[in-house]
Amino acid sequence: MAFSPLLDELVESLRCLPGVGQKTAQRMAFHLLERGRSGGTRLSQALSNAMDGVRRCDNCQNFADSEICGICVKPERRNGTLCVVESPSDLLAIEQAGDYRGGYFVLMGHLSPIDGIGPEEIGIERLLSRVKSEGVSELILATNPTVEGEATAHYIADRLADREILITRLAHGIPVGGELGYVNGFTLTHAFRGRKPLTD
Amino acid sequence: MAFSPLLDELVESLRCLPGVGQKTAQRMAFHLLERGRSGGTRLSQALSNAMDGVRRCDNCQNFADSEICGICVKPERRNGTLCVVESPSDLLAIEQAGDYRGGYFVLMGHLSPIDGIGPEEIGIERLLSRVKSEGVSELILATNPTVEGEATAHYIADRLADREILITRLAHGIPVGGELGYVNGFTLTHAFRGRKPLTD
Repeated sequence: MAFSPLLDELVESLRCLPGVGQKTAQRMAFHLLERGRSGGTRLSQALSNAMDGVRRCDNCQNFADSEICGICVKPERRNGTLCVVESPSDLLAIEQAGDYRGGYFVLMGHLSPIDGIGPEEIGIERLLSRVKSEGVSELILATNPTVEGEATAHYIADRLADREILITRLAHGIPVGGELGYVNGFTLTHAFRGRKPLTD
Repeated sequence: MAFSPLLDELVESLRCLPGVGQKTAQRMAFHLLERGRSGGTRLSQALSNAMDGVRRCDNCQNFADSEICGICVKPERRNGTLCVVESPSDLLAIEQAGDYRGGYFVLMGHLSPIDGIGPEEIGIERLLSRVKSEGVSELILATNPTVEGEATAHYIADRLADREILITRLAHGIPVGGELGYVNGFTLTHAFRGRKPLTD
């Protein structure tokens, strides 16, 4: 834009957001300048604070504002159950479901040798030492049901094969509210195999 | 999110962007923290600079970094032609088409009495005084082809009825690359009425 280099720079910077191209970035910039300057200033401050202040939790590897995140800091979360997820958004989904009250370990990825991501990069050693030191009785491997997620789960299970702890995977089945006609064959097979008596 | 108040605040702040809800804001925040911290810091700085620094051009009302915008400052743009648009994004679209080389006047809206937006709010007096002082010979009313845009164009034309200047509207017709089957009836009627000899 010939008329405002500051606006140019804002549009260009907005393109670092996922799914935001040139046109969307322009629309966002104009919106902020025309109707949302206070929101823009607040966003600028929040971005600056988060980019400088958000680090990884020393205990679970999740995003945190201090050495230990707000979940790990609670003693009631150290109840012998540990849930392993791939990303903070997976953790968030589980937290929002609201049923699980144990601890977490966030891999921040999955094993992917082709991309150079081995056990070291996703903190497997730290996970194993936590399992030992915290006296974990059940490890829930809630990695994604993808090839890489399954491989990561099996790798972790193998590394703990010599220990007397329960290792579980989340159940596969029909999503609540889903329609049978739209559910794929693998999922249906899992749902049939895992069927339960109606009184359960 | 229980684990990071800074992250909470970032997600909440991102929702001031148009078309960004809770889930998209979360995705953006995680993306920035995981893979784009430098982009996030740059965006924070660009936002702060733009929110504080971008003002309205004293001459054309468009966004500008100083009293006079980068287009109005060029003497060759004062060539007797003035194009009136509703918003900076309209101006940008015309600039990107690259053919028009005259000046602009940005209304930053259109007449809308029901919302309390009258001639005063969109700077009609400033426009009329520019038309007089700059010796404008052609005024192109490029407001949108909507009810409000047409009404605004007619209002401006009426106010200048006593002056000997050419007042024009942009041509209606079939968009280049469009298909006849998808063009609406009003547009087709305009396209037929405005038809031209093939040699033109």
